[in-house]
Amino acid sequence: MKLLRVGPVGAERPALLDAEGTLRDLSGLVPDIDGALLADDAALDRVRAAAASGDLPALDPSGLRIGPPVGRIGKVVCIGLNYHDHAAETGAATPAEPVVFFKAADTVVGPDDTVLVPRGSTKTDWEVELAVVIGRTARYVESREAALRCVAGYAVAHDVSEREFQIERGGTWDKGKNCETFNPLGPWLVTADEVPDPQSLGLRLSVNGEVKQDGNTADQIFPVAEVVRYVSQFMTLYPGDVINTGTPAGVAMGQPEPKPYLRAGDVVELEIDGLGRQRQELKGA
Amino acid sequence: MKLLRVGPVGAERPALLDAEGTLRDLSGLVPDIDGALLADDAALDRVRAAAASGDLPALDPSGLRIGPPVGRIGKVVCIGLNYHDHAAETGAATPAEPVVFFKAADTVVGPDDTVLVPRGSTKTDWEVELAVVIGRTARYVESREAALRCVAGYAVAHDVSEREFQIERGGTWDKGKNCETFNPLGPWLVTADEVPDPQSLGLRLSVNGEVKQDGNTADQIFPVAEVVRYVSQFMTLYPGDVINTGTPAGVAMGQPEPKPYLRAGDVVELEIDGLGRQRQELKGA
Repeated sequence: MKLLRVGPVGAERPALLDAEGTLRDLSGLVPDIDGALLADDAALDRVRAAAASGDLPALDPSGLRIGPPVGRIGKVVCIGLNYHDHAAETGAATPAEPVVFFKAADTVVGPDDTVLVPRGSTKTDWEVELAVVIGRTARYVESREAALRCVAGYAVAHDVSEREFQIERGGTWDKGKNCETFNPLGPWLVTADEVPDPQSLGLRLSVNGEVKQDGNTADQIFPVAEVVRYVSQFMTLYPGDVINTGTPAGVAMGQPEPKPYLRAGDVVELEIDGLGRQRQELKGA
Repeated sequence: MKLLRVGPVGAERPALLDAEGTLRDLSGLVPDIDGALLADDAALDRVRAAAASGDLPALDPSGLRIGPPVGRIGKVVCIGLNYHDHAAETGAATPAEPVVFFKAADTVVGPDDTVLVPRGSTKTDWEVELAVVIGRTARYVESREAALRCVAGYAVAHDVSEREFQIERGGTWDKGKNCETFNPLGPWLVTADEVPDPQSLGLRLSVNGEVKQDGNTADQIFPVAEVVRYVSQFMTLYPGDVINTGTPAGVAMGQPEPKPYLRAGDVVELEIDGLGRQRQELKGA
């Protein structure tokens, strides 16, 4: 299923994009698309049955904002340097184990919402990423197979990053990863049953129509199953948590000088095979 | 006021410790102690008036668990190396600007809850910290005075840290800061009007009755007002967010070998002048 949330910021309603591409209202069936729903197999089965019945009310998509496909996100765990070509372009060694950092859940916005260039920023950068949404609590998970069973589904994420804040201002990367609006997510949460192999998804990102990133999750150093297993040794992952699994090569930081960092007025478009497209216009904060 | 939340995990009710030390039930007056309440001056005034009236129902504290004093915490921002003596004991240079990292809100537990030593951990360490609870949105705050106006109050925090995960496993510190139960908070949220000078608070921590940390917020490199102002340049702070403002010297990592890291069975006690005491027993995860 393709689950999504539509409506004004903070007042999104749950919806579903059916097999015919019709937007269907789920608000009569479930209160929201969130960790509680994703952990509830019976509720998901009801949604599935309602979708199959064709009885769900259609929604007119025109003029309807798409929000992030998961509400009440607990935490957003991010994996750094998880593609061979991206590690190389940043000048970093291939990590021996996953590099973990965080984005605050309040940085998550809808897939087509405005992204704000922070005040004082000259190095706002893009990163298309495969996001994993957790559906079952993952705690000291022992195998990759068990880890995959904790995954509710997948989505497109944009891990917007301010490189000066991230790297040149002391301390950890988090300072450049948590600016307002820095994590567009969606349009859809595609349930795991419809993504048979998360390691064969093409990801692409363009800026003002020019392709900048064109990678494939086959090139991930640590595949999704290993990322979930690994992270669960250090922290407990709960339903509704999100993991951004890293970005392929092609970010602005990896380009020759003058590096083409994002500025107000730029338009970024992202897509992942089967997971939909995002489009953000940049504005000043 | 001393605001707190009492009851079973996930079902805490709002309460108040009055001037006579009597525990008073606030659940008839406000739904919870959270960002929504802390941002609502009228609601806080109602709580204050009810407390002054003496009409609030008393609660029997015996056998009552104390939860974290803030519900629905958005994010926990942490400042590293923020005391001169602690920076020195870790061998780090005094930071030129605040070092920022994160704890996930799901690591927050009550002040006397069990703390779990992670599986595979040999370097679980303690850190007593002054926690700042945000009451007004802080976004590009221009002055320290304006920053302090965004603070709802203060609490004791224990920034439990696994040093191998934090420092020796690649990437940022977050890996050693986000293990389950790693952020006891409370017992109380003491409102800012009752903490006239957050830079003159003694903080102490003992392990199995032996004093390990005995510092004062006067020794902070970046005082609370500057921390809030600074962080707000990189991310937006929302009501109900928490900032752990760093720890003074005396952590296990700073001791001679063999360093006395925490083990199951150890008891850690923490206190900050006017903000109350915590007591945690360590157990294996």
